[in-house]
Amino acid sequence: MSVSKEGIEGIVQQAQQAFTVISKLSLAQRIAFMRTVADEIEALGPELITTAQRESHLPEGRLVGEKGRTIFQWRSYADAVERGDSLDISIDTANAERTPPKPDIRKTNVGLGPVTVFGASNFPFAFSTAGGDTAGAFAAGCSVIVKAHPGHPETSQIMADAILRAVEKSGLPQGTFSHVFCETNEEAQLLVSHPLIKAVGFTGSYRGGKALMDVAAARPEPIPVYAEMGSVNPVFILPEKLKASASELAKQYVGSLTLGVGQFCTNPGLAIGVQSPELDEFIETFSAEIKNAVPAPMLHAGIAKAYISNKEKLTSQTGVQVEAIAEAEAAEGFGAPVVATALGVDFLVNDALQEEVFGPFALIIKCKDEAEMLAVTEKLHGQLTATLLATTGDVAANAELVATIQSKCGRIIFNNFPTGVEVCKAMHHGGPFPSSSNAQFTSVGSDSIKRFVRPLSFQNWPDEFLPEELKTSNPLGIWRTVNNELTKAAVS
Amino acid sequence: MSVSKEGIEGIVQQAQQAFTVISKLSLAQRIAFMRTVADEIEALGPELITTAQRESHLPEGRLVGEKGRTIFQWRSYADAVERGDSLDISIDTANAERTPPKPDIRKTNVGLGPVTVFGASNFPFAFSTAGGDTAGAFAAGCSVIVKAHPGHPETSQIMADAILRAVEKSGLPQGTFSHVFCETNEEAQLLVSHPLIKAVGFTGSYRGGKALMDVAAARPEPIPVYAEMGSVNPVFILPEKLKASASELAKQYVGSLTLGVGQFCTNPGLAIGVQSPELDEFIETFSAEIKNAVPAPMLHAGIAKAYISNKEKLTSQTGVQVEAIAEAEAAEGFGAPVVATALGVDFLVNDALQEEVFGPFALIIKCKDEAEMLAVTEKLHGQLTATLLATTGDVAANAELVATIQSKCGRIIFNNFPTGVEVCKAMHHGGPFPSSSNAQFTSVGSDSIKRFVRPLSFQNWPDEFLPEELKTSNPLGIWRTVNNELTKAAVS
Repeated sequence: MSVSKEGIEGIVQQAQQAFTVISKLSLAQRIAFMRTVADEIEALGPELITTAQRESHLPEGRLVGEKGRTIFQWRSYADAVERGDSLDISIDTANAERTPPKPDIRKTNVGLGPVTVFGASNFPFAFSTAGGDTAGAFAAGCSVIVKAHPGHPETSQIMADAILRAVEKSGLPQGTFSHVFCETNEEAQLLVSHPLIKAVGFTGSYRGGKALMDVAAARPEPIPVYAEMGSVNPVFILPEKLKASASELAKQYVGSLTLGVGQFCTNPGLAIGVQSPELDEFIETFSAEIKNAVPAPMLHAGIAKAYISNKEKLTSQTGVQVEAIAEAEAAEGFGAPVVATALGVDFLVNDALQEEVFGPFALIIKCKDEAEMLAVTEKLHGQLTATLLATTGDVAANAELVATIQSKCGRIIFNNFPTGVEVCKAMHHGGPFPSSSNAQFTSVGSDSIKRFVRPLSFQNWPDEFLPEELKTSNPLGIWRTVNNELTKAAVS
Repeated sequence: MSVSKEGIEGIVQQAQQAFTVISKLSLAQRIAFMRTVADEIEALGPELITTAQRESHLPEGRLVGEKGRTIFQWRSYADAVERGDSLDISIDTANAERTPPKPDIRKTNVGLGPVTVFGASNFPFAFSTAGGDTAGAFAAGCSVIVKAHPGHPETSQIMADAILRAVEKSGLPQGTFSHVFCETNEEAQLLVSHPLIKAVGFTGSYRGGKALMDVAAARPEPIPVYAEMGSVNPVFILPEKLKASASELAKQYVGSLTLGVGQFCTNPGLAIGVQSPELDEFIETFSAEIKNAVPAPMLHAGIAKAYISNKEKLTSQTGVQVEAIAEAEAAEGFGAPVVATALGVDFLVNDALQEEVFGPFALIIKCKDEAEMLAVTEKLHGQLTATLLATTGDVAANAELVATIQSKCGRIIFNNFPTGVEVCKAMHHGGPFPSSSNAQFTSVGSDSIKRFVRPLSFQNWPDEFLPEELKTSNPLGIWRTVNNELTKAAVS
């Protein structure tokens, strides 16, 4: 449904009422609900895929894979709650002999309250209506309002209906999950500024994410906005590796760059190397691969248009030279792969060369020596990922460069490409600003649940009234830190 | 030293240079440094106590205890780093058979960068120059700049010198720790707005904390401000408990209220009960105890003045009635204990009755029935703590009230008082806004280290270049989550 301001007021009130109910559910009930959502998504017929194909122009194979990933997110986050990972239990027991007497203190994590999620366009399943932010917020014990992405409204509605069926089957209250289409930015911002909303998840552009951060910071009660805003994901090409396999690296790189028409927040849009005959060979092969790459339809007309204008803006900067453009004709709405180069000295004086061009575009920076490569690295903004194409000899010989790269990113990759973002506990998908609003939290993997919880300590609380995860007998059989020791044992 | 704007620029630059060095230290070196700081503080002679007595008017016994607490903070946070608690290691191993191949991903926590700490006046040791924020930031691997509290400059300098001796003994670079006295708010704000500063710790008033939050949110790169701003810490007096021991509860309450002249952020400034003969008895005993309480000197003249004016502002509100004032004469700069009452109906319509009066002041809210008590609770702002004086029967009979109380606080206490804040892993000292800037983090206990770290994932990274805590052999012997299972074993 599309809503008015009054409609939003009612939806937020309902989300708050639902939160007071679902925050009292047992963990088993919360987990069962999440698994029911996964089952409902799994049971969706081919209509889901065909609808998403039509709306997003993504190919069937990619969407089938993304459906599986989305189901896995719901199930693996439910598993993380079941293991107690997201509860992070600590118990410190009493000591009556001490002066003053030491109380019994037990800490668990509780949901923050109603959460607003802004769906992304580039993952219509995994980061939209039923995506990772929604799953993470439910895993935390929150109610969720999704502001549907206008790029794939029917897909979103199919997913919303699946969640709503799970809400009903699980006997949860109306308001546990709401799905709204907003006509204006003002309506969308109400979903951030409303005093009952306690956190926001967002995946999209820097401009969109920063606008929501500003709204949240200006509230009488500021709230966290977890905005994953993308980056250029620099790839560092080190000399020994380059010497060994310049052409092969270039081919692999173009494969990662053009995957999904470059429409990933982890797309490797910037490569950095020191000038050498091998770097020239790398650029030559890269250019040949780009010329042969096939333009494909982008997610929607707006993204295709922005790709062209951002590409033009960047390639018109001083010192930037277009090396190759895909030769096959790009129809309207298609993204044509492009590679350009610039010198380190141009990069150092012009921040515009760091701007993300969302799509299959790469800029290769040619540094005159290792010192300039380090200077270029120091100048980089915060990044979701950074990649080293290197031998272990290269890593050993460039300790300062590697340390500087680590200081700039949330995930550092060795001889692999950043575009696959594995859904697992060890994944960190979030980097120093402006790649994300808060480098301390991930938006992918089960630790993303932690974005939507706050700790609550119970002091000298009667066992019978403690949440089950804190009870002395450890009825859930989960790992807990008791007097600084991890254990599954009952408290003695 | 007192600094100019130019001085601050140099200090921040030095802190950044030091950060690049200390972020490469081994964990053993980081831990050894923290233990050296603890040893240096322990070795300080009686001058520390006598200086702090003179500057803060706190009694010797309290300061000796606080010195011990401060040393314990440094040692227990070092222990938490040694156990790996603050690293929160996850490892997900590769699977080459999968399509697409699953990479090896390993996640640890790294320091955010240079941190600014604003010392508090009410804990000249434990929450000032060498206090919990400073210890937590070092434990995270950050460099630290402390803006010294002007209320106890000589005490602060003695503590700063102890830290600086530890820096020197540990061979750490200048800039690891800096201690500055600011003449103006503008200078202090530069320590938040400077682009190289990556986080801020603050303990103090709402006004001071919110001003820093606003500066941080307005930066081109917003940074986290961990402001612990205090609250009125409501105490709920439930009927069955009240019936059993009204007078005894009142005596215990006044003991907690007047401890340290009420100068704790966890001081129980608000009591809430349902009108009954037993509540009248409670108020009567409370008043008698207050009359007999002895006024004592407050931390400094500014706090004593604010106590009087805030108390007058609150007691002049409609419906507020002063029940008792300490009868002994309060000299200039002393805080005289006071208790006042108001009806629930007055509280519900006037937010001024929720204002914190920092000092030995309590307001008792008399509700006409349980429904009004629930309404009063729903109206409460976010609190660091909430206390129930109750029987288990009371808890069972008031499930909705108890759930509402939990939604408002960071720590909930059963038949105990909130003024002791135990330094342990299970402690959560931080509550919903405005009691703290971020309810997701604690400022007391070893989990406070997490305020100053961000995760960093390594993908397919060669073992020889991984941080020691992520190496396959687990050389540190710490707990790690490997493929979702906690273990101390090597990765197989």
